[in-house]
Amino acid sequence: MEVGIIGLGLIGGSLGLDLGDRGFTVLGVSRRESTCQRAIEKGIVDRANINLSLLSNADIVIICTPIGLIVPTLKELIPHLSKKTIVTDVGSVKTPIVEKCSKLWDKFIGGHPMAGTAEQGVEAAQRDLFKDAPYVITPRANTPKDSVKLLEEIAIRLGAKVYQCTPEDHDRAVALISHLPVMVSANLIKTCLGEEDPLILKLAQNLASSGFRDTSRVGGGNPELGVMMSQYNQKALLRSLLEYRQQLDQIIEQIEQENWQDLKQILEITKSGRVPFL
Amino acid sequence: MEVGIIGLGLIGGSLGLDLGDRGFTVLGVSRRESTCQRAIEKGIVDRANINLSLLSNADIVIICTPIGLIVPTLKELIPHLSKKTIVTDVGSVKTPIVEKCSKLWDKFIGGHPMAGTAEQGVEAAQRDLFKDAPYVITPRANTPKDSVKLLEEIAIRLGAKVYQCTPEDHDRAVALISHLPVMVSANLIKTCLGEEDPLILKLAQNLASSGFRDTSRVGGGNPELGVMMSQYNQKALLRSLLEYRQQLDQIIEQIEQENWQDLKQILEITKSGRVPFL
Repeated sequence: MEVGIIGLGLIGGSLGLDLGDRGFTVLGVSRRESTCQRAIEKGIVDRANINLSLLSNADIVIICTPIGLIVPTLKELIPHLSKKTIVTDVGSVKTPIVEKCSKLWDKFIGGHPMAGTAEQGVEAAQRDLFKDAPYVITPRANTPKDSVKLLEEIAIRLGAKVYQCTPEDHDRAVALISHLPVMVSANLIKTCLGEEDPLILKLAQNLASSGFRDTSRVGGGNPELGVMMSQYNQKALLRSLLEYRQQLDQIIEQIEQENWQDLKQILEITKSGRVPFL
Repeated sequence: MEVGIIGLGLIGGSLGLDLGDRGFTVLGVSRRESTCQRAIEKGIVDRANINLSLLSNADIVIICTPIGLIVPTLKELIPHLSKKTIVTDVGSVKTPIVEKCSKLWDKFIGGHPMAGTAEQGVEAAQRDLFKDAPYVITPRANTPKDSVKLLEEIAIRLGAKVYQCTPEDHDRAVALISHLPVMVSANLIKTCLGEEDPLILKLAQNLASSGFRDTSRVGGGNPELGVMMSQYNQKALLRSLLEYRQQLDQIIEQIEQENWQDLKQILEITKSGRVPFL
């Protein structure tokens, strides 16, 4: 079976390594000739080219570009595609992608393998990146069942834990556990930096330890990524942020009113309620 | 030199081990006879007793009880104390403690060694717990200088990084980097648990990974500790929470208004602004 991968960075490259190991013929497309060369040298792909026509006979094509390029890439790809080809993506937001892409191509299925490292690019590609990681597949009501089944089988062969849901449910879930934490965490740093007394700011910097480090980690991450999730998952993220603010007002009120019993109850709920997320 | 330690848990016990190693005579007081015995067996103290009269000739007494017991313990201790004795504490909030204790005892100096582990009790005591950790000393204008100097020297001999500031500045700094993160993090868990659609809640639990885990860690911690910091540091924590909410409104507005350029700028500031806290 021929698998095409467009975009040979961390995700695309790691998919190529694993799929090659599992007997698939892997065809890679990158915009840069040098990346194609490296992907061949590293054994990520069997063949690589800067031209999408390489994928004309692929059984499935996985678009692994940055999220903003998924739709334009599919548009460019379609003239080269055979009718049988299933197309999927790896974008971290699904609703706007699936909406546009399924209009362009019947056999498009949204996908989101939730794995990564801090590294980027073809050199970061590694084996078994998706092992035990969630792989969310977001078909629509009219997505062909056999296409969904094929993508699911591939994800299982990668060792991933496969979940199926609507694009909208995916986006609401990741807004809660991935995009909201970024904003909550960034806003913690922002609040500390907003301290107007330079002595207290300096002291805070000196005294900060693991609690601050962990809570602020994702808020100190890649700014482009934060903006991207806000743009593409705007509705679900706003919904989470507004809910967060309302819940925060309750905590503030309890501290203002010295309602320690209720505050303790909340902290007991958050302590035990965190466990099923781990 | 004789050092008295009241409360032989993680902090008191670890102080005893280190101070003994450095040639001090360590006298321990615990409410429980069994803890006194264990502290002697483990080499934490030279002598131990359930009676505060053991400390009648100590040069310095370190109160290592839970924060709510610091003032009552000092009141009980005073009838036994020699006039020369310096008294300090290890509480994580300083303003209300220092205010009350310095009225009771001239030679009281607030202290806060910022080290710990997840463990508690005399069995958790360990050597070098305070090495490279901040040790904040919060004298008032009228605290005798030689008393401050002695406490500072002891903290330096523990290998700690010593900072001096007012109790109020200490409490504002720890509100920002320690108490605010707990509430921000707890409120993230609370928001996720508040998701009304059980399918999305379940999906969120399945998809949550390291970003959620780190951001939610301190919010899933000891509820008693969270309530205690809110009670004792109420004013500074509320100030931080209200500032946090105001800053959050700015982020929400930028996402609502699709003001991506400004949002990116904020995320660039939080990325680089986090570094001096690490």
